[in-house]
Order: sequence, then structure tokens, then C-alpha cells
Amino acid sequence: MSFFELERSLDYKFSNINLLELALTHRSNGSPHNERLEFLGDSVLNFAITIFLFEKYADIDEGGLSRLRASLVQQNSLAIIASDLNLSKYLKLGEGELKSGGCNRPSILADCLEAVFGAIFKDSSFNEVQIVIEKQFVKLLNNLDLKTMCKDAKSLLQELLQSRKISLPRYLIVNINGAAHNQRFEIECVISELNIKTKSVGDTRRSAEQSAAKLAIDILTSSNSNYLNDDNISNYKNIKV
Amino acid sequence: MSFFELERSLDYKFSNINLLELALTHRSNGSPHNERLEFLGDSVLNFAITIFLFEKYADIDEGGLSRLRASLVQQNSLAIIASDLNLSKYLKLGEGELKSGGCNRPSILADCLEAVFGAIFKDSSFNEVQIVIEKQFVKLLNNLDLKTMCKDAKSLLQELLQSRKISLPRYLIVNINGAAHNQRFEIECVISELNIKTKSVGDTRRSAEQSAAKLAIDILTSSNSNYLNDDNISNYKNIKV
Repeated sequence: MSFFELERSLDYKFSNINLLELALTHRSNGSPHNERLEFLGDSVLNFAITIFLFEKYADIDEGGLSRLRASLVQQNSLAIIASDLNLSKYLKLGEGELKSGGCNRPSILADCLEAVFGAIFKDSSFNEVQIVIEKQFVKLLNNLDLKTMCKDAKSLLQELLQSRKISLPRYLIVNINGAAHNQRFEIECVISELNIKTKSVGDTRRSAEQSAAKLAIDILTSSNSNYLNDDNISNYKNIKV
Repeated sequence: MSFFELERSLDYKFSNINLLELALTHRSNGSPHNERLEFLGDSVLNFAITIFLFEKYADIDEGGLSRLRASLVQQNSLAIIASDLNLSKYLKLGEGELKSGGCNRPSILADCLEAVFGAIFKDSSFNEVQIVIEKQFVKLLNNLDLKTMCKDAKSLLQELLQSRKISLPRYLIVNINGAAHNQRFEIECVISELNIKTKSVGDTRRSAEQSAAKLAIDILTSSNSNYLNDDNISNYKNIKV
């Protein structure tokens, strides 16, 4: 199979084309397969996106950077890029996977794309693969929802409740365990009006409050939830603390 | 404060010593603090260890590599290295943290070490920080328990039960959801003799079985567990699927 078009879309020419072929070989096809390259590529991708965000958004704190990164390096984003690259055309799958439509499965596409990044790194250098990754992510990078992503979970929860005229949550210390130099805070986030209580534990009061707020957001925005009857909540989903 | 000794222990001389000082400044000390550098350093560290493992262990599959990495890049390991570097001596903490012994808290030490790696990367290049990281991790890298770490959760669970003459677990498909090309497998791991049942969901039957097995190992090896009355189970703890 010729990889000419794929290399053109990636804007990268392999020295060792076997690496690309391996990256496109799913484990269902037998050994060798792409999972080691995927392990490598996952870390390459994480690092490239981390550097990009760190340099570009000097004013955003680490919580905001983490949320931005999580929104970029996730299965859906990767599967969309993989589809744009027509990756499914090149996949080598076992017969079972092929029959059950594996070549369009988001998880397989996403893993494969990571393996391709791993292969490019192996074939050249981090600098080269960094350029490829930024080119592939440029659309997503330009569309980042900074406004929502850079708020922490407590702020988001407050905003979510205020916009629906629901009283603000209270954060109660349920317990403090451990010796003075190694305390663990157990915090409850209470939204009385909705009869919601979430509980979380953390090394600091602040981190425990944040993750309890995150749990409350998850409950409020889950697809089974009847708490908020509107569609305008997608931005609050999948926020990482 | 002079960082001469610390630089010697790290075997790295900073061009911009302010970066090192920032890396050692905890958020409790006010702004600016080290959390953005920690965000960067966490990814730097992950990437350096990933490359090391990928290159050194060509025969180990991605599951084994993941478990090895998780055993290295975790709070305890980082805190030990930070202690060896005498990092607590250099930390800038707020008064509250200082009084409550924050400079010896493992989480603070570990985060700070990551921030130091981030600072070295910013100060020089990935190649430079990679050398520093490998030097600091050399002891841990040489002591990796390949035998245990490179087994998957199902194999470990089987071994754990066999060594205690307990009948092997059964894996039952409880449910298969989703369209043909996007199925989700719900699997139950049953250890009848111990009356243990764990349940997990995954994109493939294999991955769901592995994570159900992992949950069973967690139950068997938890410190509250009465299932296995021996001390020789530490190697089975904290195995990642």
C-alpha cells in the first residue's frame, strides 16, 4: 500500500516507512502491532501539547492549562483528526475487527493516531513530531474555549447555579485526618435546594473543595440528570480539576 | 540563598537561577509560585521516563511499560529523590505550611521536584533535563521489579490465587452495549470461594476483564482486607491496568 497521500496530509516524509506501517497495525491483526508505538506517541503528544500551552498561555494557571490539555488530548479530538487524515483507509485490522467496523471506531482511530506520532518521533526527533502535531491540532488550538476551560470547578459550579437562580453551594469540612504534616481533608459540597451532596478528600482544603465541586458539576450535567433542563451545559462537561 | 549544593547534586548549573527559585516556591508562599513549572515538569518527566523504558525494554509490551512507568513516576518515588536532594532545605513555603511541617510532606516534595525538572527544561533543553532525570532515577531504574510489573492484572490475579490454593476467577459477560462498531463490554470477575465479585466496562472484552481483575486485586490486597493473611503481597499493590 502506498502511504504517499497520508504522508502528504501529515506533511512528513518517513525515512523508515515500516514504522508508519507498524503504527497503523492494530493488535487484532496479530504481532507485531502498534501498541508500543501508541505508548510512546501518547507521551510525545502530551509533551508537545503541554509545551505549546505553557508557552502560549503565560497568564493561565496550571489548573486552566490542565483543563485545556485534557480537552485537546482526548479520544474525540484525536478521532476527528484521524478521520480528517483518512486514517481508516490505511488501518491493518484483524478479520473480526474489520467485520464489526473497527476501522471507524473512535478508540481505534485515536490510538492509531497516537502511534503515528510515536512513529514520527522514532523516525526523526521530537522537534519534527512537534511540528506535525501542531499542524494537526491547529484548528482545535484555535477553537479552545478559554473562557470556560480556565475557570476552576468551584467557579464553574457557582456560575452554573447562579445562571439558574439556585442558591450557592456550601463547603463543609467533614473530617481532617492524618498527622499535622500530612493531613487529609474530607469536604462535603452541599447544594441544599437541589438536595445534592458530594464528598471528596484531598491533601489541602482547597483541592478537596475543588474535586467535590467537580463531582457536583458531573451530577448536574450528566445525561441522566433532571436537575438542569437545558442544552446549554455542554461546556461544563468533562471539566477536569 | 545559595543553590550551589543543590545544583551539584542535580549535576546541572542553571543559566537563569530565578527559574530554580521559582520551582522551589510553593503556592502557600503567594504568587508567583511553582505550579505552572510543575505542570510542565510532570510532562517532561513522563516523556523522559517513557523514552527510557521504550528504548531499554524492547521486549516488554505496552501494558508492562505502563506499569513500570507508573511505579516510577509516583509520589513516593519522587519524594524519595527529593529527600535525597535535600529539597526541603530550599523550599519557600507560606507560614501556615511551614508550621505544619509542609517542607517534609511527600506531596509538596514530589510536586516541587517535578517543578525543578520543568525549570531545567525551560533553562536549557529536553536533552539536558533528560540526562538529569536519568541520573536521579538511576537507582529506581535499576531496581525495577520487571517480573511482577510486566504481568497483566489477569495473570497476577491468577498467580495470587494459585499461590493460596484458591480456585481461579471466572470472567462473565454481563452486558454488551452500543452499536456494532462501538461496543462496550461489561464484565464481571467472580472469585466464588472468597465471595468476591467485581465489575468493569471497556471497549473490548479483554480490557474490561483486565480492569475487573485489577479491582479484584485491589480488594484482595487492600490494607483492610482479611482475605489474604500474609505480608508478601506488596508487589501486587498499585498495579495499573
